Amino acid sequence: MRAGVLHPDLSVGTETRRSPHPAPDDVLVAVRAVGVCGSDTHYLRHGRIGDHVVRDPLVLGHEASGVIVAVGDGVSPDRIGERVSIEPQRPDPTTAETKRGDYHLCPHMEFFATPPIDGAFAEYVTIGADFAHPIPPEVSDEAAALFEPLSVGIAALRKAAVGAGDSVLIAGAGPIGLMIAQVARASGLARIVVSEPDEQRRGRATDFGATEAVAPGDGMDAVDAFVDASGVAAAVRDGMTRVRPGGHVVLVGMGADMMELPVTLIQNRELVVTGVFRYSNTWPTALALVRTGAVDLDAMVTARFGLDELADALNADLRPGNIKAVVYPGISTWPENDQPDTTQTGEAGR
Amino acid sequence: MRAGVLHPDLSVGTETRRSPHPAPDDVLVAVRAVGVCGSDTHYLRHGRIGDHVVRDPLVLGHEASGVIVAVGDGVSPDRIGERVSIEPQRPDPTTAETKRGDYHLCPHMEFFATPPIDGAFAEYVTIGADFAHPIPPEVSDEAAALFEPLSVGIAALRKAAVGAGDSVLIAGAGPIGLMIAQVARASGLARIVVSEPDEQRRGRATDFGATEAVAPGDGMDAVDAFVDASGVAAAVRDGMTRVRPGGHVVLVGMGADMMELPVTLIQNRELVVTGVFRYSNTWPTALALVRTGAVDLDAMVTARFGLDELADALNADLRPGNIKAVVYPGISTWPENDQPDTTQTGEAGR
Amino acid sequence: MRAGVLHPDLSVGTETRRSPHPAPDDVLVAVRAVGVCGSDTHYLRHGRIGDHVVRDPLVLGHEASGVIVAVGDGVSPDRIGERVSIEPQRPDPTTAETKRGDYHLCPHMEFFATPPIDGAFAEYVTIGADFAHPIPPEVSDEAAALFEPLSVGIAALRKAAVGAGDSVLIAGAGPIGLMIAQVARASGLARIVVSEPDEQRRGRATDFGATEAVAPGDGMDAVDAFVDASGVAAAVRDGMTRVRPGGHVVLVGMGADMMELPVTLIQNRELVVTGVFRYSNTWPTALALVRTGAVDLDAMVTARFGLDELADALNADLRPGNIKAVVYPGISTWPENDQPDTTQTGEAGR
Amino acid sequence: MRAGVLHPDLSVGTETRRSPHPAPDDVLVAVRAVGVCGSDTHYLRHGRIGDHVVRDPLVLGHEASGVIVAVGDGVSPDRIGERVSIEPQRPDPTTAETKRGDYHLCPHMEFFATPPIDGAFAEYVTIGADFAHPIPPEVSDEAAALFEPLSVGIAALRKAAVGAGDSVLIAGAGPIGLMIAQVARASGLARIVVSEPDEQRRGRATDFGATEAVAPGDGMDAVDAFVDASGVAAAVRDGMTRVRPGGHVVLVGMGADMMELPVTLIQNRELVVTGVFRYSNTWPTALALVRTGAVDLDAMVTARFGLDELADALNADLRPGNIKAVVYPGISTWPENDQPDTTQTGEAGR
Repeated sequence: MRAGVLHPDLSVGTETRRSPHPAPDDVLVAVRAVGVCGSDTHYLRHGRIGDHVVRDPLVLGHEASGVIVAVGDGVSPDRIGERVSIEPQRPDPTTAETKRGDYHLCPHMEFFATPPIDGAFAEYVTIGADFAHPIPPEVSDEAAALFEPLSVGIAALRKAAVGAGDSVLIAGAGPIGLMIAQVARASGLARIVVSEPDEQRRGRATDFGATEAVAPGDGMDAVDAFVDASGVAAAVRDGMTRVRPGGHVVLVGMGADMMELPVTLIQNRELVVTGVFRYSNTWPTALALVRTGAVDLDAMVTARFGLDELADALNADLRPGNIKAVVYPGISTWPENDQPDTTQTGEAGR
Repeated sequence: MRAGVLHPDLSVGTETRRSPHPAPDDVLVAVRAVGVCGSDTHYLRHGRIGDHVVRDPLVLGHEASGVIVAVGDGVSPDRIGERVSIEPQRPDPTTAETKRGDYHLCPHMEFFATPPIDGAFAEYVTIGADFAHPIPPEVSDEAAALFEPLSVGIAALRKAAVGAGDSVLIAGAGPIGLMIAQVARASGLARIVVSEPDEQRRGRATDFGATEAVAPGDGMDAVDAFVDASGVAAAVRDGMTRVRPGGHVVLVGMGADMMELPVTLIQNRELVVTGVFRYSNTWPTALALVRTGAVDLDAMVTARFGLDELADALNADLRPGNIKAVVYPGISTWPENDQPDTTQTGEAGR
Repeated sequence: MRAGVLHPDLSVGTETRRSPHPAPDDVLVAVRAVGVCGSDTHYLRHGRIGDHVVRDPLVLGHEASGVIVAVGDGVSPDRIGERVSIEPQRPDPTTAETKRGDYHLCPHMEFFATPPIDGAFAEYVTIGADFAHPIPPEVSDEAAALFEPLSVGIAALRKAAVGAGDSVLIAGAGPIGLMIAQVARASGLARIVVSEPDEQRRGRATDFGATEAVAPGDGMDAVDAFVDASGVAAAVRDGMTRVRPGGHVVLVGMGADMMELPVTLIQNRELVVTGVFRYSNTWPTALALVRTGAVDLDAMVTARFGLDELADALNADLRPGNIKAVVYPGISTWPENDQPDTTQTGEAGR
Repeated sequence: MRAGVLHPDLSVGTETRRSPHPAPDDVLVAVRAVGVCGSDTHYLRHGRIGDHVVRDPLVLGHEASGVIVAVGDGVSPDRIGERVSIEPQRPDPTTAETKRGDYHLCPHMEFFATPPIDGAFAEYVTIGADFAHPIPPEVSDEAAALFEPLSVGIAALRKAAVGAGDSVLIAGAGPIGLMIAQVARASGLARIVVSEPDEQRRGRATDFGATEAVAPGDGMDAVDAFVDASGVAAAVRDGMTRVRPGGHVVLVGMGADMMELPVTLIQNRELVVTGVFRYSNTWPTALALVRTGAVDLDAMVTARFGLDELADALNADLRPGNIKAVVYPGISTWPENDQPDTTQTGEAGR
């Protein structure tokens, strides 16, 4: 099969590799669409995220959908042909974390596109049969791929402990911030304030759920919860000051390992501060929200690429107006990208 | 002032009474609109609800809105002129229940229209200043009155422990069932099944949030929670069988004091069964849901009456298509009710 | 190996069977001690529990400890020789219930001694490696066997939502009632009332955690929670009336499938009523409580039997003063049971 | 009456003041015993805590017990003569925080010994009748005074979300750290690790609940929760690294307003970080724990003073071995303090 590979020297290229073979409880999925995540781009640019270092060639990509083409011995062959959204994690079912329902915190986790585990920018991947979630015809391949970042939004809103009629402040109008805003809207929150310094990004927030889009430092009434999707220390600190006593703060954006935080404020208001690492048990919710139209994932796709254009895809965040790029591992070059102006944008983006 | 009074002999009439005087922390409200609740009708027909017996003349009505016309010594006179939705309860701030946030469970509660406490079918009422919730111009008097039954729906959904993308079964498409369905829709539930034997009532459920309306006994997939708004033992038992393991059951409808319930099922599935008595801390949520249009209360008003038509209003539940009747204590006779056919309906209703 | 078998005609006998072979993720345990549970006795006397019917010969016993003597291919051979307490369940790791941490509610569960799954009154059993919990030398084989009923007590107290300084009423001073009382004491509850009609059983309750032992119907102050360990409808109903508004009711005792319950009371006090089926994630807690001496399991063992005495063991509940009988599958006859008077008690018990 | 007063120039003296008069819902308490808190000492030394500045003469002291000697018009005179523990806060019953059960977070709070509200180093104080909690004869005046710091420990353990059999790390073996350790022991925690740099303080931790006392930096197994009672940034950071995934961190100790915290760790382990400001609904728990002997407050009193020795009392933290000093406002000089060596210690302490 063909796979897009990131090398330790940070070069990206397409290779021919042996297709993976499904273990007894696995399915083999022909990958259809794969979203590009900021973490993929971060590996491209820095070769590491925290302690996870690209020491050997690595296949990136963990937001994926596809079709089951083979199954392991322990899986019903009836599943062959199913369109699926891939939950890109393999927890160990025997750890304390998994057993209490926090399987995403499992210390033995194998997660797509996290060294040394390969990801989904490839024609085929294997995944546990129960982590390949069937999708109905009305959900597109691209939307099915984006169940993964939507799951981050779902996990964040759950931890924010808000519901119908409540209010939230979201810092950052990048793809994750917009996902969170969409989940907030789908959950019936009455006031969804998105704070974003970039004027163009700020402008689009109201298309994806925000009831107000503000610049950092703008005044506002207190909110029931604050979710940071920026990773910027100043935004985190400012956001905490906006939360009512007893409200929740959820840190989703990845930034510096250490941040100076207002401890006295946390104490005096008894704020509840936590973070989102990944997610557990979110796919059924994601499917329900997309099926009913409460969340629109298709509208978030702003660029498409074939596997040979992987480097362009990974740099698509530099394009003005980009929200989410999608890679089609089964296609070499996305047809419309053969136009001169698109190519120029692609080069400008590197 | 004029007040509509229920006598121990179950007759209803209009009387002139002395207007109440606001205590130091109270406001005096000129009542605008008052919804008729099934409990008001129950008092009319039976003279009691459980241990609460009408032994002396009683003013019914506990779903009320109005305008503040005077304030007690401890309340800012700036509040005079405010349009308010009345939360019709006076908990004792010193009890354990109130102090832990369950003020509606306060054993010293004084609640409107519960003997011997008078209610709101009167020109004026007093209420604690913090239980007179200001409403903005875009919320109608009738909607403001119906914040009270909406609060029952909000309290029920909170106890059902469901949120965006989840599913619920609601038994009963009366006004409370429809309120619950509306709150479920506003909360982003993906599947909202209303079960109702009456075909006409069943038909309207989808106008108020239901994604499916079924007859009792119809097959369905398991749901995350079941809320009973029927008070019918068979419906309660059937509903419990529909809930997934670990799901919640909330009993809102008032029926027999004792019911035969499937204890082994509750154990084997570890269902969590609870009831809704009244509500605490729901008015801010109600306001948010109505302001944003997530819940439509105006569409639930199907009949209007002046104070002299109180008996008709209390019997409006017998009219086909009735959802919620509203009484205007400041008006003797609702203008449109002077038509011949309406009068006939009124008489037929008695 | 030798195994004690219950036949569909309700006769009990010892048979020679082929030893089980550990699957890849399993361990093979040489059984040391097995507690007799009321459900074992129930199968002996009635041949069924609810929908679970003894249609084929069945090995009973699910409260077991032992020593690992072999391991499956996927398990480290270092574990051979470990003394373990057996958590007698095999959930399916792929179901929604298991994934959210309620693995005991898994619909594909295979549970020891529940037809058609054999239990532990046998020389050897297999169990998932992660369900064979290592125990330190200071915990006896008998105590390790009784981690299972202790887990029921732990699960019950968790659902009762009470903690240090709170109060609880427990109906029934049988082995499970005493386990719950012990866990309540270990959790720092200040008032632990045990209600029990039998005077002798009532007397021993204070040895195992109760701060008060009362007869049914005795007056008492309101409690924060009620846990039923009797399965008697009258006790359940009475217990519910003792709980403060907002308190929890946990139904553990198995009785009639249907019970008449006070629904209006549940509603007016907003009681939270639930049941305990089995338990998840309790073994680490059980170990901690036994190790620190907070819970005393050894003191609960009142009779011991070899495998050939299984029928006597299953009927030990009929002996005065019995709390918990333990069977040693590796021993034919418990030495001290060879005394004339013990034999007579055993016969009287049948 | 006589009162001990802190002046803005940080001098302390005894004055004669007019006794306070109880408002309608208040009681007047003749103060018996008052514990000295670190915040009292902080005001003495710095004249402020955060935004609270001593601009006018202030009576310190908020850990108090006494006897009711008069009542307001709305309180039953039967309460006169009652021995009470004072919960030193006056929340506004009408705020959102109070109504949802977090009355300690009420923005209109009036709290003893927080400028401009006077405290309890005086012969008489008034307090809301429901915040004067009756105590039985077996609870000493000193223990009743210390219900207040015990409440901080109770609030901290509740937020730590741990229970029987769990583990906790507590940083700091000062009076609050020891209170937390005692509550942890009373709650059945199996492993209670106290970290403290001072060897003498470390030594006493095991007298008050710790199962292990360690020096900062000592190795240890992961714990379920971490409670900081030190206010030291390095201790907070280190403690966070000890907590298992999904565990809770509770910041009780007061230190710098801003601290550099390990945000990536909070995210990757999804730690839940919060603070304790004060407490709600803890007095019934405190009484239960002290009555049953689960918590020993009397053993924490290491020095006693009369009102004229207030400066000595406020500096008692400087004496070796001091845990908790208690002031008797009704006594000028504590008899045993008239000894030469004690006086010297007192002077040395300033």
